[in-house]
Amino acid sequence: MSLPMSPDEHLKQVLASFDESVNPRLVEILRSAVKHLHEFTREVKLTHKEWFAGIEYLTATGQKCDEVRQEYILLSDTLGVSMLLEMINYAASEKATEPTVFGPFHVDGSPHRKNGESIVDQTNDTGEPMVITGAVKDTNGKPIAGAELDVWQVQSNAMYDVQEGADWRNMRGIFTTDAQGKFEIKTVRPVDYTVPDDGPVGNMLRAAGRDKWRPAHVHTVVSAKGYIPVITHLFDSESPYLKNDVVFGVRESLIADMKNGKCHYDFVLDPL
Amino acid sequence: MSLPMSPDEHLKQVLASFDESVNPRLVEILRSAVKHLHEFTREVKLTHKEWFAGIEYLTATGQKCDEVRQEYILLSDTLGVSMLLEMINYAASEKATEPTVFGPFHVDGSPHRKNGESIVDQTNDTGEPMVITGAVKDTNGKPIAGAELDVWQVQSNAMYDVQEGADWRNMRGIFTTDAQGKFEIKTVRPVDYTVPDDGPVGNMLRAAGRDKWRPAHVHTVVSAKGYIPVITHLFDSESPYLKNDVVFGVRESLIADMKNGKCHYDFVLDPL
Repeated sequence: MSLPMSPDEHLKQVLASFDESVNPRLVEILRSAVKHLHEFTREVKLTHKEWFAGIEYLTATGQKCDEVRQEYILLSDTLGVSMLLEMINYAASEKATEPTVFGPFHVDGSPHRKNGESIVDQTNDTGEPMVITGAVKDTNGKPIAGAELDVWQVQSNAMYDVQEGADWRNMRGIFTTDAQGKFEIKTVRPVDYTVPDDGPVGNMLRAAGRDKWRPAHVHTVVSAKGYIPVITHLFDSESPYLKNDVVFGVRESLIADMKNGKCHYDFVLDPL
Repeated sequence: MSLPMSPDEHLKQVLASFDESVNPRLVEILRSAVKHLHEFTREVKLTHKEWFAGIEYLTATGQKCDEVRQEYILLSDTLGVSMLLEMINYAASEKATEPTVFGPFHVDGSPHRKNGESIVDQTNDTGEPMVITGAVKDTNGKPIAGAELDVWQVQSNAMYDVQEGADWRNMRGIFTTDAQGKFEIKTVRPVDYTVPDDGPVGNMLRAAGRDKWRPAHVHTVVSAKGYIPVITHLFDSESPYLKNDVVFGVRESLIADMKNGKCHYDFVLDPL
């Protein structure tokens, strides 16, 4: 009688079934995914019951998604994969500003605003007024004139504008640096908020003893012609959630003092 | 300025966020899953576009599922994970019959049948009549009397009974070995068939140049008091799909001669 097939031989057979001549990059990705999926299954010695719980979890995560809710992106965020994606796709050197997660709340076509203008369009916002000043520079410290800062942040009610209605716009603006590379943004001090926890991701966070908070931050994408753009945040140094951001976006270098209505930060871009 | 966080430091932070005191086994599984997910992402250097295609694929797979269709199980089957699950959870020695995939078409409460009785309840089945004979033995070759064989197979129209209606029953039966450990099952020679390919799994198979066929087989779960049960198949040695079973279930030791209306196979069980 022939010997039983080993898990290694079985994996080899699965990997060989994909035909790289049909779609080389897809097959490269599938082979790596399958290899890690098998290694995971063996490493934890998954039982039938656990496997089925996993099948049900993945199914429920897909079924939670609709036009406004994307539970798989939230899962990617809360398992640190979205942050990792920014890290491995950021080509700039260590001297440039560190990137962090993009998040689901950016919108294209924010209003262009003058330096010193406010992004707070809602007059009844209860936040603490704050001005962000700073410059955009290259890695040699030279100011970059005409750099753009696409800025967005949560409202003081802990909701993004788009969460309150697809057409609603507030707390967004595109600023352009002046001849000295400087910018000035009027806003309010950002607040801490939680990710939506009424779906499979919330169940995972609770079951694994995790928090659901994001520390207060202002989003920005800083770009300039001839430079590598950076997707990043400024984090409030006084947030109690800096150590346990649910999406693992906090970086030491991105923490800024936001006390007394002022925040100052210089962004650094690497040439392309 | 502090140095940027490395992908290894980032992973360490994600792993540390899970609290093993809350749910030790879940956290063990999540940590292994996250580690492999991060390794996969780095290994293939996933781009934003590919990541989003993956998000959309996982979402569509969940949304294809309903009460009768489970696309995530089909994905697990076609990536070899379901077969791996049987391998790592089968505690028997190398002398016992090899296991293979359980599949989605078993039903509880099949009719008990006498030795020699047919599992073909549909009188207009067009298949080639076949009798399966054999014995159930222990690893020392001693016959096991009173062992049960829960048998099911595809109809000759390449559909399982349950695929034609939840209440429809055909091609199933539970047989019991006699005092000499012997059994005799009347059936028809099984046919090759394909897995459903009108969903995300079908798209994956086509995009990666893979087949969608399962080679002709008869399912059985063989069990006896005091022995480790085996979930397995008998495969038709003349099927053209033995080398590329879409769910990777074929094992050399499970291939049987089904020519001339006869099939003979002895199953071997290990004591508990």
